[in-house]
Amino acid sequence: MSVLVVGSVAYDSVKTPVGSREDALGGSATFFSVSCSNFDQVSLVAIIGEDFRDQDIKLVESHGVDVSGLERVAGRTFRWSGVYGTEDVNTRTTLDTQLNVFADFSPTLNESHRTEPYLFLANIAPSLQLDVLRQMKTRPKLVALDTMDFWIEGSNDELTEVVREVDVVFMDQGEARSFAKAANLTQAAKTIHDLGPKTVVVKRGENGVLVFHNGQPFAAPAVPLDRVVDPTGAGDTFAGGFMGYLAATGDLTERGFRRAAVLGSVMGSFVVEGFSLDRLTAITRNDIETRFRQLTELTRFEPLADDETLPSRTK
Amino acid sequence: MSVLVVGSVAYDSVKTPVGSREDALGGSATFFSVSCSNFDQVSLVAIIGEDFRDQDIKLVESHGVDVSGLERVAGRTFRWSGVYGTEDVNTRTTLDTQLNVFADFSPTLNESHRTEPYLFLANIAPSLQLDVLRQMKTRPKLVALDTMDFWIEGSNDELTEVVREVDVVFMDQGEARSFAKAANLTQAAKTIHDLGPKTVVVKRGENGVLVFHNGQPFAAPAVPLDRVVDPTGAGDTFAGGFMGYLAATGDLTERGFRRAAVLGSVMGSFVVEGFSLDRLTAITRNDIETRFRQLTELTRFEPLADDETLPSRTK
Repeated sequence: MSVLVVGSVAYDSVKTPVGSREDALGGSATFFSVSCSNFDQVSLVAIIGEDFRDQDIKLVESHGVDVSGLERVAGRTFRWSGVYGTEDVNTRTTLDTQLNVFADFSPTLNESHRTEPYLFLANIAPSLQLDVLRQMKTRPKLVALDTMDFWIEGSNDELTEVVREVDVVFMDQGEARSFAKAANLTQAAKTIHDLGPKTVVVKRGENGVLVFHNGQPFAAPAVPLDRVVDPTGAGDTFAGGFMGYLAATGDLTERGFRRAAVLGSVMGSFVVEGFSLDRLTAITRNDIETRFRQLTELTRFEPLADDETLPSRTK
Repeated sequence: MSVLVVGSVAYDSVKTPVGSREDALGGSATFFSVSCSNFDQVSLVAIIGEDFRDQDIKLVESHGVDVSGLERVAGRTFRWSGVYGTEDVNTRTTLDTQLNVFADFSPTLNESHRTEPYLFLANIAPSLQLDVLRQMKTRPKLVALDTMDFWIEGSNDELTEVVREVDVVFMDQGEARSFAKAANLTQAAKTIHDLGPKTVVVKRGENGVLVFHNGQPFAAPAVPLDRVVDPTGAGDTFAGGFMGYLAATGDLTERGFRRAAVLGSVMGSFVVEGFSLDRLTAITRNDIETRFRQLTELTRFEPLADDETLPSRTK
């Protein structure tokens, strides 16, 4: 099986407690596709400007990503800049967003894209997400979307329309609460389930993810790291591991979704260890499997046996 | 085995998105001891005023808690009032703190208290925590302490002195970062380990806990709840389940600490379902064991088998 991602390719300028980087390769589709490429074939649809560096295309291609859907047009590439907190590296402030060529992005899928069985609609305008879905010749086996506060607040109707048509929704906890108009995350997940999606992935940064699959919650922690260099792209890298696992195995049972979430968490833990895609493009299969086992160890405890009871004062 | 807790007994006035309660039974030693009493014998040392209601003493006693160390003096009982966020019930603002009789609390242990094998120093002045530790005739098998920002900022030297002498430290993530002067939690835990404690429990509210035991991290999630009524006392209730499990089983291996953390999380999940101790005093053993199994299910995923590899694009 294979995966199609439609999203952004960008240049990011970030400042974190560890250092800073100017015009570094970023964008939701970039992080997603490089992460996903470890596990399955992935095609990327995005837009870049004249200033986009050939070496960055080559880097993504070198990970086996099909970049035939990467459209280059006149103008400058999408740019984002932000700064991460010194007290808590998980809090960030956007300094500047220049949409540039991304402002006129109108994704056009080629013939092979239109039959891809797994589709990830990264964080773009809900109207574009819906347009991409309409271009598919056959309904993919699995469609997932990511979004952000900007669309929840400004394009709520369009977002709700596309949410109704997808299988998996990725939101951070603030977005889930805000979209569902529910302070309680379990209630928020129920509201989203009721719209259609069977799976709601609530991202909690360094606190891991909560996956509500057919109403059943699963908690996957983040791997505690000695050093977080740059959190940019963690959510899309998570989604790349998650979708990559599902597409490669075709296991859409609860077992598959749980393992996919763990693998997503593993992939997210790498990307934050470096700026941009530095660490993500350097890891080996052995690194990934070692950390998957590390995350298993992180959550391991001895369950109560069927006939076992907890200790009691009155016994 | 049995447990001694020294801390506060208080009347709390709280306002949460669900409702409000005036002068409701609270205090760290109260939540801790009622939680712990499910699993093992527990004795409480605390101070109350003339206004303290007999029915509240009876309630605690009815859970088998030894209240011989509950000292009643002239004056009013410690009072705290606060309001919890409507957007996020986990954020709280203190409206008022009246120390009252708690301002002159000078815990005096009786003979039987002085030989208790498990000791929980709840959130009181570090100098009092140290004084209690000095009153013990024999070094307990396990000493744990909880603290708060107020002492980290205002009594850092005294707090550091007592931290050096305990086995387990409970802090929320902000407190751990602030005490250890490290934004990264893994680094913060290492700094605290280096002072002496083998176990650092980092509380993350609805995101569960991270337990660093001999440097190895263990993540126990919180149980996602449909409805959070009042988060007051969740941390102390967690600690009560945690210490109760360790004291009752005597299992101070990594296996024991991991199960203790899960049981702590289970107990914390009950107390927030009601105001004050309403829910905590109403649960049955069956409720506790059912939720322990529910938390097991919440974290369950299929690990990689020894000879299993993850799917690969290039294979």
